[in-house]
Amino acid sequence: MFESAEIGHAIDKDTFEAEVPALREALLEAQFELQQQKRFPVIVLINGIEGAGKGETVKLLNEWMDPRLIEVRTFDQQSDEELAHPPAWRYWRMLPAKGRMGVFFGNWYSQMLQGRVHGLFKDAVLDQAIAGAERLEKMLCDEGALIFKFWFHLSKKQMKARLKALQDDPLHSWRISPLDWQQSQTYDTFVHFGERVLRRTSRDYAPWHVIEGVDPHYRSLTVGKILLEGLQAALKKSRSQSSPGHVAPLPSAVDQMSLLDSLDMSLALDKADYEEQLITEQARLSGLMRDKRMRKHALVAVFEGNDAAGKGGAIRRLAAALDPRQYSIVPIAAPTEDERAQPYLWRFWRQIPARGKFTVFDRSWYGRVLVERVEGFCSTDDWMRAYGEINDFEEQLSDAGVIVVKFWLAIDKQTQLERFQQREDIPFKRFKITEDDWRNREKWDLYRTAVGDMVDRTSTEISPWTLVEANDKRWARVKVLRTINQAIEEAFAKRDKHEKKDRKNRKSK
Amino acid sequence: MFESAEIGHAIDKDTFEAEVPALREALLEAQFELQQQKRFPVIVLINGIEGAGKGETVKLLNEWMDPRLIEVRTFDQQSDEELAHPPAWRYWRMLPAKGRMGVFFGNWYSQMLQGRVHGLFKDAVLDQAIAGAERLEKMLCDEGALIFKFWFHLSKKQMKARLKALQDDPLHSWRISPLDWQQSQTYDTFVHFGERVLRRTSRDYAPWHVIEGVDPHYRSLTVGKILLEGLQAALKKSRSQSSPGHVAPLPSAVDQMSLLDSLDMSLALDKADYEEQLITEQARLSGLMRDKRMRKHALVAVFEGNDAAGKGGAIRRLAAALDPRQYSIVPIAAPTEDERAQPYLWRFWRQIPARGKFTVFDRSWYGRVLVERVEGFCSTDDWMRAYGEINDFEEQLSDAGVIVVKFWLAIDKQTQLERFQQREDIPFKRFKITEDDWRNREKWDLYRTAVGDMVDRTSTEISPWTLVEANDKRWARVKVLRTINQAIEEAFAKRDKHEKKDRKNRKSK
Repeated sequence: MFESAEIGHAIDKDTFEAEVPALREALLEAQFELQQQKRFPVIVLINGIEGAGKGETVKLLNEWMDPRLIEVRTFDQQSDEELAHPPAWRYWRMLPAKGRMGVFFGNWYSQMLQGRVHGLFKDAVLDQAIAGAERLEKMLCDEGALIFKFWFHLSKKQMKARLKALQDDPLHSWRISPLDWQQSQTYDTFVHFGERVLRRTSRDYAPWHVIEGVDPHYRSLTVGKILLEGLQAALKKSRSQSSPGHVAPLPSAVDQMSLLDSLDMSLALDKADYEEQLITEQARLSGLMRDKRMRKHALVAVFEGNDAAGKGGAIRRLAAALDPRQYSIVPIAAPTEDERAQPYLWRFWRQIPARGKFTVFDRSWYGRVLVERVEGFCSTDDWMRAYGEINDFEEQLSDAGVIVVKFWLAIDKQTQLERFQQREDIPFKRFKITEDDWRNREKWDLYRTAVGDMVDRTSTEISPWTLVEANDKRWARVKVLRTINQAIEEAFAKRDKHEKKDRKNRKSK
Repeated sequence: MFESAEIGHAIDKDTFEAEVPALREALLEAQFELQQQKRFPVIVLINGIEGAGKGETVKLLNEWMDPRLIEVRTFDQQSDEELAHPPAWRYWRMLPAKGRMGVFFGNWYSQMLQGRVHGLFKDAVLDQAIAGAERLEKMLCDEGALIFKFWFHLSKKQMKARLKALQDDPLHSWRISPLDWQQSQTYDTFVHFGERVLRRTSRDYAPWHVIEGVDPHYRSLTVGKILLEGLQAALKKSRSQSSPGHVAPLPSAVDQMSLLDSLDMSLALDKADYEEQLITEQARLSGLMRDKRMRKHALVAVFEGNDAAGKGGAIRRLAAALDPRQYSIVPIAAPTEDERAQPYLWRFWRQIPARGKFTVFDRSWYGRVLVERVEGFCSTDDWMRAYGEINDFEEQLSDAGVIVVKFWLAIDKQTQLERFQQREDIPFKRFKITEDDWRNREKWDLYRTAVGDMVDRTSTEISPWTLVEANDKRWARVKVLRTINQAIEEAFAKRDKHEKKDRKNRKSK
């Protein structure tokens, strides 16, 4: 993989200086069009051997291009806020908006390589990280991002020669960093695992470019040209393209039976039972949220459902059990301008709770496979791939200790009609009913199909859907609370079991 | 100040239950209109004695109102990201958007009170904090925010009785927090300084409401009614109001002389001098940014100037001296939707560098007193009060160790014309010239006046304006770099002097 980056590529100064002006001009023009189009972001990942010219090349790019449109990001030590969130949160918060370019130093690849080289984990964990990176990049590219991945390379001999030259020169010996020394020790291991990572993550939509780093002219010109060609191709494509590919729609069940039909909509609670059970579950939730094990978890509850199914009321009963300092409720409406300039899931990543906290989403990332699908706000491709992206997103949350609970509050068509009419009659509820609600009602069957597909494709072991029979509000509210309590208790039990096993393992050693 | 909150206010259960439904309905309606109007945010500050029902009241408000439109924020321990920024940054990042309500626990008042009560500082520093809070609130109110400040009170006797009751009750004794015990020790001091804070910060636009906390019915109903009345009044005002008050415009100099006329626009550097001086200043900047004293500072450079004055070129020469991981360049254009939903300075607070970092603003917060003033994008009141807000903003940065350097790049009208024409001729510079540029040119004199006023009102000792004669680009670029270097060196020298003095003081003790 690295062979052709160890053969001593070089370009003489004259050729370099003759080529740079035209390259620069073209890069500037491409950058300008990128900004004008505002249709996709550019993400440049910088990795490779210490001393192979990573920093210098990025510096030069900043000089050649308009640095006002480039954001250079370093990810070294995690801040305490980053540590309290799932690992990918730090990357999501730094993504460049459409029309801009982000250069990521110390990105996900450096993190996994450092960890493996220094023995923090074994191959299995490395491969998990690799798969995670692949999914992230695939998603970014599907959202339109243009990704460049550069590996700056030096052979072992070249690296040693460089260190020796620096060391012998009293004026420059200070430029040898501790990382350089460290890497000269671990060169072979680093390259070994680097090869594994590059091999597995070089994909048509985001290939690696291995750059021999010895000669500054060669490496700068090469990187500049790769960027330019990639940019020009992407700009041309986005100029001509209105909407991407085509995907066959999902088949509907031949017998027209749907999961929602199987719910027993007559389930109900009488007032006395309701009050008793509600208070019991609220007290239970309140206790669980104060349990010290909660400090290692976070809680996310997603509420979706038919209009007038009682999401707001269920959320209020939930909130009533808790200290307002512990939770936040995020109502999801149409995305803002800043949100539209980012990949779809960005606005939800923004709201993911830190450890110990609880976020309630009143509507959620499932909007893409519900309202956006039904109303045609996104292409079929977009909502089709959303299922996978969402499963991946929720898996990341779960891996980081976030407990994810998802509710579909279901009512039947007749109940909805009655509630709509009631709302129009009560003065302070009138604002809860709009023209949109009546329009959505006409698409009842389309929504029914979308809900069925959603549950089929995103109800997973780590984050199952709970369908809530909501014709009776009391029944629904208690079921919601009870489900959340069970999910927290299961997470605690799982953790207890793990810790017990850990203690046992340590003892037996 | 607290007398009438120690007289045992109480409301019986029946009265309470009779009043609540109508209050709730009205609150919900007000909240809904708030969200529909999206014209101002509501900020609720919660302070007072531990155990006086702060948490319980906020919880109740969340039940009465729609919790989806309320954000409850706590500010206790600062995160490391917050510690690396000026103190107010943590509040700015949590401000509710227009149409929403933010409840701030542990806000700026709690911080200053805790500090004073525990002897971290004396009255002088407390009074500084008080003045800072006043300026912040004034600015928020001027931007339209509706602020409620609640002080929940208990007399010493009431507090002791409450602790005793809890302690005697085995089921509830766990509810006594360490804070409660602490405060029963420091009650007198706390109330003493609380009085000072309330006295000085109760203003017509943001008055304090002292609530006796003993009786839950009384305190909830009182808070609810205050909120409702305030909300209704503000909503009514904003319904009827198109634009606020009137301010007399600034007088222009009777002799028409302007500061800009006093610049020697013939200043220039020949190529050889330029190259030598540029390299010298770049090396100096590079060294200063690597100086370990820089870890205690941050650097902000603001670039304003006539169109085609060479801001971009000067910024590129600056960037060329630095490692791209150290700086970011923020181009300021029209605000986005999310930014428009916040006070004017919010989008700049977002971009303030953490310690050790450098942010270059290509155009800046001065837009309000330049383009927004000249083009009428804001009211006269808005840009008139911006001078004060900006001075306050920059003082906060400076107090936190941020070095602020501001440049106005000035060219004369003839030079601008030549550059415009030149840009239209060079293919890859053509994108730099637009219709807007020609239109702005017609307003040359209006801009000249605005710049004069801006410099007169915002060139301060802690953050002076540097007017740069930019007819000669070389001269301008070197002057920019040199000015930044001097500013950093002065900041370092000041710090060294302080530290020397500190060491001396410690020794002599």
